[in-house]
Amino acid sequence: MNDTKPTLRPITEIAKQCGIDDKFVMSYGQYVAKIDPAVTKQNAPKGKMILVSAITPTPLGEGKTVTTIGLSQGLNYIGKKAIACIRQPSLGPVFGVKGGAAGGGKAEVLPMEKLNLHLTGDIHAITAAHDLASAALDARLFHEERLGEEFTKQTNLPLLNIDKNRVVWKRVIDHNDRALRNITVGVGGGNNGVERNDGFEISAASELMAILALATDLKDMRQRIGRIILAYDKSGNPITTEALEVAGAMTVLLKDAINPNLMQTAENTPALIHAGPFANIAHGNSSVIADIVGLQLADYVVTEAGFGSDMGMEKFFNIKYRQAGIAPSCIVIVATIRSLKSNSGKFNIKPGQPLPKEVTESNVELLSIGCANLGWHINNAKGYGLPVIVAINRFPYDNQEELDFLQQYALKQGAFACEVSEAFAKGGEGTAKLSQHIVKACEQQHTVTLPYSDDMPLFDKIQTMAKKYGANQAKLAPKALQDIEEIKKLNLAHLPLCMVKTPMSISADPNLKNVPTNFDIDVTHLQVSAGAGFIRVYAGDVMTMPGLGTLPAYRKIDLDDAGNIVGLS
Amino acid sequence: MNDTKPTLRPITEIAKQCGIDDKFVMSYGQYVAKIDPAVTKQNAPKGKMILVSAITPTPLGEGKTVTTIGLSQGLNYIGKKAIACIRQPSLGPVFGVKGGAAGGGKAEVLPMEKLNLHLTGDIHAITAAHDLASAALDARLFHEERLGEEFTKQTNLPLLNIDKNRVVWKRVIDHNDRALRNITVGVGGGNNGVERNDGFEISAASELMAILALATDLKDMRQRIGRIILAYDKSGNPITTEALEVAGAMTVLLKDAINPNLMQTAENTPALIHAGPFANIAHGNSSVIADIVGLQLADYVVTEAGFGSDMGMEKFFNIKYRQAGIAPSCIVIVATIRSLKSNSGKFNIKPGQPLPKEVTESNVELLSIGCANLGWHINNAKGYGLPVIVAINRFPYDNQEELDFLQQYALKQGAFACEVSEAFAKGGEGTAKLSQHIVKACEQQHTVTLPYSDDMPLFDKIQTMAKKYGANQAKLAPKALQDIEEIKKLNLAHLPLCMVKTPMSISADPNLKNVPTNFDIDVTHLQVSAGAGFIRVYAGDVMTMPGLGTLPAYRKIDLDDAGNIVGLS
Repeated sequence: MNDTKPTLRPITEIAKQCGIDDKFVMSYGQYVAKIDPAVTKQNAPKGKMILVSAITPTPLGEGKTVTTIGLSQGLNYIGKKAIACIRQPSLGPVFGVKGGAAGGGKAEVLPMEKLNLHLTGDIHAITAAHDLASAALDARLFHEERLGEEFTKQTNLPLLNIDKNRVVWKRVIDHNDRALRNITVGVGGGNNGVERNDGFEISAASELMAILALATDLKDMRQRIGRIILAYDKSGNPITTEALEVAGAMTVLLKDAINPNLMQTAENTPALIHAGPFANIAHGNSSVIADIVGLQLADYVVTEAGFGSDMGMEKFFNIKYRQAGIAPSCIVIVATIRSLKSNSGKFNIKPGQPLPKEVTESNVELLSIGCANLGWHINNAKGYGLPVIVAINRFPYDNQEELDFLQQYALKQGAFACEVSEAFAKGGEGTAKLSQHIVKACEQQHTVTLPYSDDMPLFDKIQTMAKKYGANQAKLAPKALQDIEEIKKLNLAHLPLCMVKTPMSISADPNLKNVPTNFDIDVTHLQVSAGAGFIRVYAGDVMTMPGLGTLPAYRKIDLDDAGNIVGLS
Repeated sequence: MNDTKPTLRPITEIAKQCGIDDKFVMSYGQYVAKIDPAVTKQNAPKGKMILVSAITPTPLGEGKTVTTIGLSQGLNYIGKKAIACIRQPSLGPVFGVKGGAAGGGKAEVLPMEKLNLHLTGDIHAITAAHDLASAALDARLFHEERLGEEFTKQTNLPLLNIDKNRVVWKRVIDHNDRALRNITVGVGGGNNGVERNDGFEISAASELMAILALATDLKDMRQRIGRIILAYDKSGNPITTEALEVAGAMTVLLKDAINPNLMQTAENTPALIHAGPFANIAHGNSSVIADIVGLQLADYVVTEAGFGSDMGMEKFFNIKYRQAGIAPSCIVIVATIRSLKSNSGKFNIKPGQPLPKEVTESNVELLSIGCANLGWHINNAKGYGLPVIVAINRFPYDNQEELDFLQQYALKQGAFACEVSEAFAKGGEGTAKLSQHIVKACEQQHTVTLPYSDDMPLFDKIQTMAKKYGANQAKLAPKALQDIEEIKKLNLAHLPLCMVKTPMSISADPNLKNVPTNFDIDVTHLQVSAGAGFIRVYAGDVMTMPGLGTLPAYRKIDLDDAGNIVGLS
């Protein structure tokens, strides 16, 4: 994909270049290291954070990761010290859909196969810690049902009286495996456990992944893990990991995972890879700890938030910023001309099929309809009080006329700047102009404005978010209203929302493209993530266990005769 | 547990001490490294192998790992260059039963918490690779059932016609989780897959674990993985990972796992930790690759084989030696006086309860009955043509009179030597005398004698093994006889047997202690492991998914205020 193969430097050199003392570097082979967050006690934080978001994505993706990595390279290219902070990809999509998630072209994290496969085992550790809690819960259920009152006599432990129909902690596995969505465990009962309905989600959907991404240190992580609600007892009271005495062991399994992973880009720019929560059922941002480390080592930290600005960016502010207090200095909205044209609703883009001529030929008319989606995202981002820069991720078939039109449109909508990014084709050089704008934007002082306060009633928080999407209102099902009351009883109503909805529309209906109007947000139910510290508000079904297609990516992945990995990209 | 805390040396120094060039060392933090097996191309093999086995174990264990590690230290203590090769413990027992499996006292692999938790992620990689095959199989089943003939038209792939009632590849997870023993997947069908019976085994029971332990290099591993039989089609033909086009991706997931892990003992003796197959449903020995590496770096490699000599040691010869051709120079049988007394059948030892006075007080009479079990194991081991040394793993309450009796008995039974091991209390110094005997035994030249040839008919192989146990005969159920015919049709009858039976008796009945006589071996069925290259012969139910007890070990495992792990041992 590259003209010349990039030359990687030993990770110990990259660490040194960041000013990290050897004693804080735990190498995992030659090109990956874990960084001890204790390194942050050396220096005062100095960096500014750039948050990369996007317009409403098409199934092809808008190149947010490429732009994030490209920007970190571009800032270095113009003489600044920058680090990228991104999420770790899940194995599921790697073997299922696309074969990799390390950026691409000249804006890629390397070695790509380390990033895309096990890295340093953080996701495996999450899977192990998560499923330990499941095993512990089912074992307790089994022994209590088996022994009754005798259980307490034998063990001196209280009866937890787990309601087997109210286990909210599903199991997890890091694969796309639809057969595990709905399962029955303990089939046949007897010595093989208590029969009950269960299911697996993909590991990135684990509350532990959100916790890893939000914890500020090991102690904070231990406390968050102890607050996780696994199930409810027969009287409706929550059963936590602490009550099951499994929170300590779970944390022990994550003791190394809490240290961020240092890698490098194709241009030897340092990249911190840490945690990978989804941006629908979780907050969709890499870890707070990586941000803290990055901000003390570099002048600029470039990080991305999953999906469009209505998803990961919103959650960055309402969840991550609210909890950790780290504010970005500017926001970058990544847009592609093909996706904005597609937002016109006049044609469809489907993965695996040839691009329609509306994409490959200049068509300012379609663009002038679809660009309203960009306008919405600019204004949504500006609503948080920060300067917004639009990065047009350029494709070879993009026309100058279209680029000019879009630039003017973005500026008219109040963007601080709008610039083409050629990160994929040219690496840091391709984002040099964009980087200049970013440096300028970051010179200004801004205060983040949040759409709701912690103490706003839950119902009102939900209405506030619905209005943010442009909805007439949020319509709450009876179950949702009941959940609000339960959350109040648990004294958790002060937590921020994690809006669970489709990322494929600003609304909650994936079919409504561009800027939907005159719609409602239907909220079916709420679920509290007491450890992560947010309340999931379900406005649509979100798939937390993907499936493999008819022609899955794993078919092409193998070793060549020399033992090198082929088929990952 | 130790008087003085051992001082660990950086793993890079340990590697250097073994003569490993830096370029073959991939550090995983300060005290663990993966060793590139390419290091073996530097030197000619020079070492001698000592295989540590044991008498029939009690539930308390006989201290085989302590003796193995202690012996590697003892050989260094007397001026020889030795390396220990042991298996990686599974997380299941760590959180379930005992809290760790790193040896103990002054004969321990350190840092114990690295060994007992994730190490370098090899078991996680096995879990991921194994479950990728499961996801792939269920996805193919789903798409073929959904699309019928249309599947081939859409994909150009052949219909595999998987018989959903003959899927032999269960899923795996590295936990003790009885609720996952029997499960139903794809519950409800529709878009959530095809409903069928399934179950999870613990990861150590995966055929991939046996393959990792038996492969000689990456290419061999790739080929073995391709031969794995996942299921049978509706006409009864085997469906391999190769047919499902998933063998390459599975191997890619194990690309790092194939490199053995270097650690050190409490006395800085190098230890290679690699693979952890069970000794009942698999062959119970650490990896061939670690042996090859160890034998080229050291003069002596001390390795252990799971359970008694009827289990792991037998399988070392009939499976590992047969496949890899590496022969030990002598065999060590670990015995404890408490266990031999218990073999008298006059009292019972139960974990978690105080030891009976028969154990803590001298009782040569009981010992003189139970020591027949040691006699059997000495003769069983001698049957393979090698000198046998008995190591008495000494406990504080053992009496000199008993020790003297046992020593004389062992020599009378044809042991090359019998010596007390005080590895736990004294480390290498405590096995110095034993090590001297071993050096002497290894000076002799021996040829391994195997009990059956590859081309002996399957039925006769099974009878031969039954006779080895002292049985009158093996009685084969109709299903077992039918399996023999199927295996012949698959042209796999040349493979060696992997006898699946209880380790708690020389017979297949765990209640028959000491040296059982006048019994049969009941064989229910056979199962072929085409990738590992053996045929599992089931003579008893073997639990491949343990459960958690009422007071599981995870309850005590946590972090202290300084962030150190407590409760692992």
